[in-house]
Amino acid sequence: MNTHEARLDALRKELKARGLDGFVIPISDEHMSEYVGGYAQRLAWLTGFGGSAGTAIVLTDAALSPAAAMLVDGRYTLQVRDQVDGRLYAYENVPATSVAAWLGAHAPAGARIGYDAWLHGSKWAQGVEQALAARGGALVAVEGNPVDTVWQDRPAPSDAPALVHPDRFTGEASEAKRAAVSEWLGAKGLDATVVTALDSIAWLLNIRGTDVERTPVALSYVIARADGTADVFIAPEKVTDELKRHLGNAVTIRDRAAFVAGLRELAGKRVAVDPERAVSAIFEELRKAGATLVEERDPTVLPKAVKNPVEQAGHRAAQARDGAAVTRFLHWLSVEAPKGEVTEMSAADKLQLCRQEAGDLRDLSFDTISGAGPNGAVVHYRVSDETNRTLEPNSVYLVDSGGQYPDGTTDITRTVWVGPDAPFAEVKDRFTRVLKGHIALALAVFPRGTAGSQLDVLARHALWQAGLDYAHGTGHGVGSFLSVHEGPQRIAKSGGGQAGTEQALLPGMFLSNEPGYYKTGEYGIRIENLILVEPRAIAGAEGEFYGFETLTHVPIERRLVDVALLSEGEIAWWNAYHARVLEIVGPQLSGPGSAAALAWLEAQCAPL
Amino acid sequence: MNTHEARLDALRKELKARGLDGFVIPISDEHMSEYVGGYAQRLAWLTGFGGSAGTAIVLTDAALSPAAAMLVDGRYTLQVRDQVDGRLYAYENVPATSVAAWLGAHAPAGARIGYDAWLHGSKWAQGVEQALAARGGALVAVEGNPVDTVWQDRPAPSDAPALVHPDRFTGEASEAKRAAVSEWLGAKGLDATVVTALDSIAWLLNIRGTDVERTPVALSYVIARADGTADVFIAPEKVTDELKRHLGNAVTIRDRAAFVAGLRELAGKRVAVDPERAVSAIFEELRKAGATLVEERDPTVLPKAVKNPVEQAGHRAAQARDGAAVTRFLHWLSVEAPKGEVTEMSAADKLQLCRQEAGDLRDLSFDTISGAGPNGAVVHYRVSDETNRTLEPNSVYLVDSGGQYPDGTTDITRTVWVGPDAPFAEVKDRFTRVLKGHIALALAVFPRGTAGSQLDVLARHALWQAGLDYAHGTGHGVGSFLSVHEGPQRIAKSGGGQAGTEQALLPGMFLSNEPGYYKTGEYGIRIENLILVEPRAIAGAEGEFYGFETLTHVPIERRLVDVALLSEGEIAWWNAYHARVLEIVGPQLSGPGSAAALAWLEAQCAPL
Repeated sequence: MNTHEARLDALRKELKARGLDGFVIPISDEHMSEYVGGYAQRLAWLTGFGGSAGTAIVLTDAALSPAAAMLVDGRYTLQVRDQVDGRLYAYENVPATSVAAWLGAHAPAGARIGYDAWLHGSKWAQGVEQALAARGGALVAVEGNPVDTVWQDRPAPSDAPALVHPDRFTGEASEAKRAAVSEWLGAKGLDATVVTALDSIAWLLNIRGTDVERTPVALSYVIARADGTADVFIAPEKVTDELKRHLGNAVTIRDRAAFVAGLRELAGKRVAVDPERAVSAIFEELRKAGATLVEERDPTVLPKAVKNPVEQAGHRAAQARDGAAVTRFLHWLSVEAPKGEVTEMSAADKLQLCRQEAGDLRDLSFDTISGAGPNGAVVHYRVSDETNRTLEPNSVYLVDSGGQYPDGTTDITRTVWVGPDAPFAEVKDRFTRVLKGHIALALAVFPRGTAGSQLDVLARHALWQAGLDYAHGTGHGVGSFLSVHEGPQRIAKSGGGQAGTEQALLPGMFLSNEPGYYKTGEYGIRIENLILVEPRAIAGAEGEFYGFETLTHVPIERRLVDVALLSEGEIAWWNAYHARVLEIVGPQLSGPGSAAALAWLEAQCAPL
Repeated sequence: MNTHEARLDALRKELKARGLDGFVIPISDEHMSEYVGGYAQRLAWLTGFGGSAGTAIVLTDAALSPAAAMLVDGRYTLQVRDQVDGRLYAYENVPATSVAAWLGAHAPAGARIGYDAWLHGSKWAQGVEQALAARGGALVAVEGNPVDTVWQDRPAPSDAPALVHPDRFTGEASEAKRAAVSEWLGAKGLDATVVTALDSIAWLLNIRGTDVERTPVALSYVIARADGTADVFIAPEKVTDELKRHLGNAVTIRDRAAFVAGLRELAGKRVAVDPERAVSAIFEELRKAGATLVEERDPTVLPKAVKNPVEQAGHRAAQARDGAAVTRFLHWLSVEAPKGEVTEMSAADKLQLCRQEAGDLRDLSFDTISGAGPNGAVVHYRVSDETNRTLEPNSVYLVDSGGQYPDGTTDITRTVWVGPDAPFAEVKDRFTRVLKGHIALALAVFPRGTAGSQLDVLARHALWQAGLDYAHGTGHGVGSFLSVHEGPQRIAKSGGGQAGTEQALLPGMFLSNEPGYYKTGEYGIRIENLILVEPRAIAGAEGEFYGFETLTHVPIERRLVDVALLSEGEIAWWNAYHARVLEIVGPQLSGPGSAAALAWLEAQCAPL
């Protein structure tokens, strides 16, 4: 019996002991985080799956066929087969199936299926409940996760201290942010709101942490009240004197373990809860306590997305350093890669080193996507020892990466040609079409009230004209030393199942601008800069109009541009963009040994 | 007491006699039609309001303040003040208020408010019911409309014969269409569907009629069954021997008065009803009968929208004649208008005459929008004796019109400059930006699955770049000798409250392409052609791609084009478009007295 077989067996014994006919294991935590701490990596421990999204369903009776399933989306259909034992788990694709549909088809009649209500939203639970009820079964919230019972050496949640994030970076004191929340509660006739998303709490309290990789948040919950007071529930070992001073008298620091007690104290109160962000257990506890639940979007989500001038200035400073770091990396790559010994991993390591040397790097903002040749066509590729490729001469290399700096979070993709010969015509054509889409979005002008879904086509049309497209969104929101993927805004087609495409774009919002093109088995192309929504003064304008400021400053691979495909306006954008890159990055390439990098940058930034 | 005061008084007496505290009067019929017959023009009779959309609410107690209200949208805020007596009705704007909201605020506590369940959808009724329930009141379906009781000389519904629409126009026999519906019912495990939309019935049975102005439909209902049989409920005087032969044995012709009886026969059956198209009374009757209601979109809606090759060929033939008619009109206008004696009404009359002379015209497809100068800026302008303006020399004139031909329904807008002098720079700039949007949409290429909401920005971006926009959608579906506004597809921004923007565009669909620009008090610009979604073969395409064929062939006002603003691609589109106009319309301008029109056309169609 191998490791994962033994773990599954132990789980089944535990489920049987609890009188359950099955159990659902997602990748999630109590905060419905995109990235979760090691203590919450139950799916990876149980099955060996290393992807970022997926769910296992385990039926207690191993004699059933199928007795367990792994549900993953199209990004992971290959990876799941490598990592998860197909004798133990049936492979299933979402959205073709779902947990509700799978249980509706495969759970034994009358089955009692367990779930951890601290890891799922309440709408999800309703859907599964209905599917099971149709077979006479039920969805049962467990007391304590059965995976945790059998996971002997499960890591404890991080005990790292929560960190104060100074107002010189946030631009607004936590007191003012909390006052706005209490005003919002008052205007809606509500008594309190439960804030559960870790980045919302970090923003509201102006704190950060190191509890989750890639996202600088601290594990905690907040209950904020209409009277301006708030309770923060956080493990005592994470609380420093500095934090206490920072939070002041209006914020009561309580043990994270007291959170359920805190919810119960809301008996008889009108409480706002965000169904997209709060887990099912919180709804249940509040209902049991006798609180009146009012479903509202977390009131910090929109103000967090609209960056204030201090956050914008911080971001620009972070981008300047990040731009110099990535430029140094690209220069190094231009020298080293054609020798044929750079690998995806060594390139990612070098890029991280460049960022560290640029200063103030606290973490990467996500695992670097370093894709050589065909690996570049895997949109969410994560390099590993098994997949690590050398950057072959005369091939395409895609690198998508970002840094967490105290003044800003970056996210940039560059696609480069590994010489020494000239690139082939097809890849230049594709690259130039992606570039045309990138420029069209960068140059967009739009009226107040415009949502991301309305702009998406601008980034795609040059590809569509050649019968090509890309199967991902065009832009996501980005935090300020917070999540690299931040809501509520998004540039993508509406009805594509991704939240936020109908959110109106507001001045101060950060977004990515990242069209791409992927030829399976051959190469991938993506050009990504971050952009800022800004008011646009137009003589004679009828109403308020907005446009984008590009925030990322790194040269784009000019060898891959087919200039004949560009309009005058597009060439003008390119030249202005690179003049600005040189202006911002050039002065930073001044130390010893930088002369070659500067010369390279100057060549990259010469007019087309 | 004036006419409308007396009518309102009589209605209040009737309501009192019925024990009702109020009544709601919409513009609607039993089919939820966009245009309704004279017998259903209850709102116009009661209040004098002549617009196409609006609702009155009358409270029985005239001593209340307000005791009645007229709810209209932004198009009619001025018109309602001209036509409806402000002493009798409070003016209210939708969507700022709604019937539910108004009654929630103004109905007496405990009020019993009447409504005619044959004129409203069931969702509407639910919303109003909730608003009244909150005040202890109730919404009560009336037996017989109280307006009809007091409307002495109310016209009878049209008794015009229903007409057979031959397969040489429809391209598909009614039998085949009914077979597809029965197959759809079978696949869904349903027994029957109630088809209530008049254009759906016309399409399904291949019949037309003259019961409603501008839309060639015949008043009737259909119940279609999974076994392939159907009942059509239609007034006996409308049934000809030809119609009987055409419908054949599988279709039972029954009296329209027997429709409720027909619904009751569905007791115990599983019946599909379209909540967007069937009135509340139908839901109620089926519920009372004990049928199982399944909400589904009317199964004729999508196949009706996807035109078959015969319908496409018919439409092209109709467009060729219509194009020649509109061209003759524009030539006439170019000669006559600068003399300063053409009016909006005489122009509309002349245009109708040109269409009649072109042959086969059965009706206009909507009331011609003939807007000189500032009237062109009123998007839904309808000329009347009171508003009729002369086309002033050196002004802008907008004309939006269409014809109903047995082989097709047309809809075209042209905006022309009334000479003799050259147009001013601003109007050329605006016109050219509208043109750029029109061309961008005409040249769009997009993958299968793309919805209208995704393409909308293409038609707007040239305006947005100058801080300008237009406050209407970009494109609507169009019927085949049916409604000029036909669902389910639409090109407009999503979330704008208009249905259909998320419907994927399918080859065979007709749409309008009609961006515009309106300067209130000065002029309006709109350029509208009809377009057809067609498959687009692209070498190396990855997946299925579509584009548009432009179906309308009439020269666009070249004097209003600022060629310096056009790209090479846009100029190429213009030149190819006009070469095709000349090719199609030129040969039709060959009779006696046509030489001048042909010479004018040739000049209009010369390359830019």
